[in-house]
Amino acid sequence: MPSSALKKISSQDQLDRVFHALSDRTRRALLRRLEQGPAMVTELAAPFRMSLPAVSKHLRVLEAASLIERRIDGRIHRCSLQAAPLEAADRWLERYRVFWTGRLDALARFVEDKK
Amino acid sequence: MPSSALKKISSQDQLDRVFHALSDRTRRALLRRLEQGPAMVTELAAPFRMSLPAVSKHLRVLEAASLIERRIDGRIHRCSLQAAPLEAADRWLERYRVFWTGRLDALARFVEDKK
Repeated sequence: MPSSALKKISSQDQLDRVFHALSDRTRRALLRRLEQGPAMVTELAAPFRMSLPAVSKHLRVLEAASLIERRIDGRIHRCSLQAAPLEAADRWLERYRVFWTGRLDALARFVEDKK
Repeated sequence: MPSSALKKISSQDQLDRVFHALSDRTRRALLRRLEQGPAMVTELAAPFRMSLPAVSKHLRVLEAASLIERRIDGRIHRCSLQAAPLEAADRWLERYRVFWTGRLDALARFVEDKK
C-alpha cells in the first residue's frame, strides 16, 4: 500500500475521532474550559458535578483525538488544550459554508476545491 | 424553565447529533455524494459496496441530525442534502480558527465573541 493511501486512511481515522470527541456536550465544555489554560483533572471535574471517573472517561476520548495533552507529575494530572486537530474538522466543514453565508469568497474556495 | 434554557438544551442536543453524524467516514462520504444532488438510496449505496440495510442505518443517523431529507414516492426513497445544521458545528469550531490561521480577522471575531 502506498504511503499516501496509508496517510489517507489515518487522516480519516483522525477525523472520526475528532468528530466523535465533539459529539458530547461535556467534552465540548471541557475544551472550552481549557481555552483559559491548563487545568488539573480535579479542577476540570468541579463545575460538572460529575464523578472523577466519569470526567476521566471523557478526557480519555479527548486524548484519543489528540485534543488534549495530559502531563503527569506524581499524583497531579494536568491537561492542556491541543487545538490543532480541530483544523481538519474545520476544513471538512469549510466547503459547506457557502450554503449559509452566500459569501463570494466561500463560493470561490468551494469552486477552487472542486477543480 | 424559561424558553431560552429549553432552546439552549435543544441546540446542544442538535450539536451532539451533528458531530455524531460526522464521526463516521461513510456518513461523511454520503454527505459529499449528496452535494451533487438528490439520490436514491440504491444509488447512494452503490459505491460503498455495503448492504442496503447498512447504508440505511447510516442514513437514519444523518436524518436524526437533520442533515438529509428523505422523500418517499412509492418504493423509491430519495435523499437530499440539508446543509443548514452544519452551520452550528462550523460556528462551534470558528473560535479555534485563530489557533491555526493566526489571522487578525479570526482573532477579532474571537475577541468579539468573548465580550
